[in-house]
Amino acid sequence: MNSDELVELGQQLRVDSVRAAAAAGSGHPTSSMSAADLMAVLLANHLRYDFDQPDHPGNDRFVLSKGHASPLLYSAFKAAGAIDDDELLTFRKLGSRLEGHPTPQRLPWVETATGSLGQGMPIGVGIALAGKRLDHADYRVWVLCGDSELAEGSIWEAAEHAGYEHLDNLTVIVDVNRLGQRGATRHGHDLDAYARRFRAFDWHTIEIEGHDVDAVDRAYGEAISTTGQPTAIIARTLKGKGVKATEDREGLHGKPLKDADEAIEELGGVRDLRVRVHAPPATPAPRTAGRDGLDLPRWDKGEEVATRDAYGKALAALGAAHGDVVALDGEVGDSTRSEFFAKEHPERYFECYIAEQQMVATAVGMSRRGWVPYASTFAAFLTRAYDFVRMAAVSGSGLNLNGSHSGVSIGQDGPSQMGLEDLAMMRAIHDSTVLYPSDANQTAKLVAAMADLDGVRYLRTSRGESPVIYGPDEEFPVGGSKVLRASDGDRLTIVAAGVTLHEALRAADALHEEGIPVRVIDLYSVKPVDRDTLRRAAEETGCLLTVEDHREEGGLGDAVCDAFVDGRPTPRLVRLAVRTMPGSASPEEQLHAAGIDAESIAASARLLVEEAVVR
Amino acid sequence: MNSDELVELGQQLRVDSVRAAAAAGSGHPTSSMSAADLMAVLLANHLRYDFDQPDHPGNDRFVLSKGHASPLLYSAFKAAGAIDDDELLTFRKLGSRLEGHPTPQRLPWVETATGSLGQGMPIGVGIALAGKRLDHADYRVWVLCGDSELAEGSIWEAAEHAGYEHLDNLTVIVDVNRLGQRGATRHGHDLDAYARRFRAFDWHTIEIEGHDVDAVDRAYGEAISTTGQPTAIIARTLKGKGVKATEDREGLHGKPLKDADEAIEELGGVRDLRVRVHAPPATPAPRTAGRDGLDLPRWDKGEEVATRDAYGKALAALGAAHGDVVALDGEVGDSTRSEFFAKEHPERYFECYIAEQQMVATAVGMSRRGWVPYASTFAAFLTRAYDFVRMAAVSGSGLNLNGSHSGVSIGQDGPSQMGLEDLAMMRAIHDSTVLYPSDANQTAKLVAAMADLDGVRYLRTSRGESPVIYGPDEEFPVGGSKVLRASDGDRLTIVAAGVTLHEALRAADALHEEGIPVRVIDLYSVKPVDRDTLRRAAEETGCLLTVEDHREEGGLGDAVCDAFVDGRPTPRLVRLAVRTMPGSASPEEQLHAAGIDAESIAASARLLVEEAVVR
Repeated sequence: MNSDELVELGQQLRVDSVRAAAAAGSGHPTSSMSAADLMAVLLANHLRYDFDQPDHPGNDRFVLSKGHASPLLYSAFKAAGAIDDDELLTFRKLGSRLEGHPTPQRLPWVETATGSLGQGMPIGVGIALAGKRLDHADYRVWVLCGDSELAEGSIWEAAEHAGYEHLDNLTVIVDVNRLGQRGATRHGHDLDAYARRFRAFDWHTIEIEGHDVDAVDRAYGEAISTTGQPTAIIARTLKGKGVKATEDREGLHGKPLKDADEAIEELGGVRDLRVRVHAPPATPAPRTAGRDGLDLPRWDKGEEVATRDAYGKALAALGAAHGDVVALDGEVGDSTRSEFFAKEHPERYFECYIAEQQMVATAVGMSRRGWVPYASTFAAFLTRAYDFVRMAAVSGSGLNLNGSHSGVSIGQDGPSQMGLEDLAMMRAIHDSTVLYPSDANQTAKLVAAMADLDGVRYLRTSRGESPVIYGPDEEFPVGGSKVLRASDGDRLTIVAAGVTLHEALRAADALHEEGIPVRVIDLYSVKPVDRDTLRRAAEETGCLLTVEDHREEGGLGDAVCDAFVDGRPTPRLVRLAVRTMPGSASPEEQLHAAGIDAESIAASARLLVEEAVVR
Repeated sequence: MNSDELVELGQQLRVDSVRAAAAAGSGHPTSSMSAADLMAVLLANHLRYDFDQPDHPGNDRFVLSKGHASPLLYSAFKAAGAIDDDELLTFRKLGSRLEGHPTPQRLPWVETATGSLGQGMPIGVGIALAGKRLDHADYRVWVLCGDSELAEGSIWEAAEHAGYEHLDNLTVIVDVNRLGQRGATRHGHDLDAYARRFRAFDWHTIEIEGHDVDAVDRAYGEAISTTGQPTAIIARTLKGKGVKATEDREGLHGKPLKDADEAIEELGGVRDLRVRVHAPPATPAPRTAGRDGLDLPRWDKGEEVATRDAYGKALAALGAAHGDVVALDGEVGDSTRSEFFAKEHPERYFECYIAEQQMVATAVGMSRRGWVPYASTFAAFLTRAYDFVRMAAVSGSGLNLNGSHSGVSIGQDGPSQMGLEDLAMMRAIHDSTVLYPSDANQTAKLVAAMADLDGVRYLRTSRGESPVIYGPDEEFPVGGSKVLRASDGDRLTIVAAGVTLHEALRAADALHEEGIPVRVIDLYSVKPVDRDTLRRAAEETGCLLTVEDHREEGGLGDAVCDAFVDGRPTPRLVRLAVRTMPGSASPEEQLHAAGIDAESIAASARLLVEEAVVR
């Protein structure tokens, strides 16, 4: 398109943004209007995209990091012929694909859910990295950011990552409209404040007037021809641009225009320009990431193996069989044991350094490109990335997360390194799977099973060694459990997983000696939970004693309750969990101090039986 | 101390770090050895600190952001005479104050718990901001960072905040020892890579040789005399410095030295230098932050008020009565309504822009200086700061957090803006308090009550208006609940809070009309939970139906289970919660689609009664 046409297209995107928000009665037209020219030039002259084939491997990828400017995105989709005007006006209504903030669950042309600021760009970096190092394709990634979101640290984790990886297939466009939600940003229209930050992180930067379509056009061309560095285009714009009543005005964030009809007239009225978006280049050769026979590691019963070791070895084996599996780590691969994968498959291993948000964002981006990511760090440090995990679920991303060093049983390092909230955090994620193995063979089987699940899958591993209790051919279906001790006369049932399972077994054996038979269930699948087995144990033993190396809230104990919240008769429930703030001590001392070791379990069981709380 | 003495002191700190780790059999001596000279010069020549009066208002504040280098910190404490050699050798043992990573819960000279990297510096920024804008004291804040942790985005949120606020009372010392946990950092010994990043964020920077005590001494002097900007001292060091077997070697992170005796000899043997740390300046006038009569806002029954509005107004009133209350927000004060506080008390309001980690870090820092912070943003975006909240609990910080826009009931904005995991996340925090009011007067009372609690306190507020159902003089003790509908013949009990409480009341009234009396409990205190009232309801009605605008895991339903996990007979439990991924829709449509509106509640109750699941 020539300059005049681009100006017209920009106005059309503004008009349609105003119309969509007016029809909805809510939304962010002013944040759309500032970026309309930036979007018009990209759509008409630079983006290579086949809207009929959103999965086309040669497609460029566009990410709206400022997700609230969804009216602009949907107006662009309309201009490209992907949706019609009737659908545009369903914006934000029940059942519409056009949500307040875009999600790929509903619209095939959306790469990732945005709306929590500072996430689109990090995920864009992940897609660009996939393009360079996995897909070996020449698609470009374009990310449109707001200026407000540059205050998020995740942006600078991403800037660091992209600069270091020389991602010259990535262009970030910053819509510097000076105004955040409640007023001016820190840096207003000081474009250099943003540009010098990006430059410090080794980016190429271009500062432009964001409403000058020729300048925008030139900047995109310069970005495309820049090699060895990602490019940040810092564009001076006006929020609410094009309508006197809204232009550069405070207090109008996230509100439809007061007089939409007048504004549309001022913008030159409704248009119906149609953009013929450039087609992607011819399809590259299909990816060769095949799936061969899986040869998981095997351990003999009685061996002492840490589940983190089993994780690393199983992941390396999975990587050998599945060419689409990739691994990421937050600079603790020697602890999580993802280093085993790194050694065997260095070309599919991504060191994300101590930047957990960027690690998860990279995994989400790679998942979008069809790869199967396993991202590992200490369970405690995954809390750093909780918003990214939450949003991955909104995107419907397939994502494997591993948290090692869970619980007080890590020992001397103390509470800062102990994952004690991870089960609560991961269980609350929509459609998540939460797994917590207790032995090496079980870990290996679950690592393999995760690859084929939907949504966010979380595997919790432990630092210390524990005995192998299952044979290498045993199966561990997700949603299942294992009954390890059972008799007709069981007085109660101990439910445990991971480290506490071994304590539970020791306690059960001691109790058996004393003539107190108890059942023991290995609840390795914390979510979904094995309701049938728990219910049967409840009927047969009357009391469930849960034991977990986790806070008492949101973990194994609460998971067991899940089996009984449908109005059926409920067993007596007793819970052992970590209720104190641990200090430094040995693993054994920690388990004892927290009251979750074999002695504490046995003492609790005795008390329950003696006090006739249970039969 | 002169140069020779400083060199000796540095060696002593190394020797003591090696000894402490050797005695413990674990720990991070090599990470301590790299920073020993930096610490020696600070302790001997620049820090102003009275170890006998850690609360002295004039004390400088030292934060060990690289918390794993705790042997160095404890060795410095010993050199300053704060602990003796016997205690030094209790490092990492059960019951010792000298934990693997330092915490203020056990040691009075520790400002904040560290060990999750990238947190000490952000919290140091909070302390420095308190010094400038609240305490009006001239203490300095010194933060010792590792180079690896500069990959964390939280560091750059903090750099942005400190640069923008011109915190020239803050000095960050970066120990660039080139090696992270599993190998080299991204930038190795490229000091300028770090310096230019800090400069881009408007910091003064000084690059030095970190083992040259004269250079270090001059750099500290330059930092002290620099005005208008924080200073970052980027120091080139060697990990394991001083011992040939460890110096600049990979693979030795977090491990005691193999031959400690030999290393100690190589370092010149055990010394017993004692440092006379400079005293702080004379005590400034005591803070005038008094507490006058509290005049909370009042609403009449039947008024329609959003709890977020009540939060903002109550917070403003609390600020008028309590001079020590401060408020922070993540650039959404017009939505959370913390803007009401900002208007009345601008000198105690801190705009943290869209940087939730830094917002919580600032609050933690201010809390350490005796202020009572209330930090607000959308409930959904507090997920961004979960690691900081977790670590605040490790510190034992008093911290008030407010999450607005909770649940699907926010309406059209869609799932990215909906706090649906916040109760799970906050309940799992050690010693936390979790409150979820349903009406304006209740909100106001709880906002006031939070100020005097210990630990992390979380208040969940709602976007939409709801009727005032309590009089302004009603009391709402933390740990309590309110029984709003009750009769002898109640067939079951509905437990709800916030938005769903109003739905529950409507359902109960409809059921009453149909001849099905039900009890309704307002569970405004989600943690601690009112066990007595729940147990009584269980005994009297046999079935508890929980209804929450939150994911089914970790929220209100699980909190109710807390009342029944001590082996007592358990009632039948039924749970209504958000089990789908919402799209855009009106608040009413959202509640209905999630199955948590009055109609859904009534339908569930009818089913339970008709199917004779309950009596």
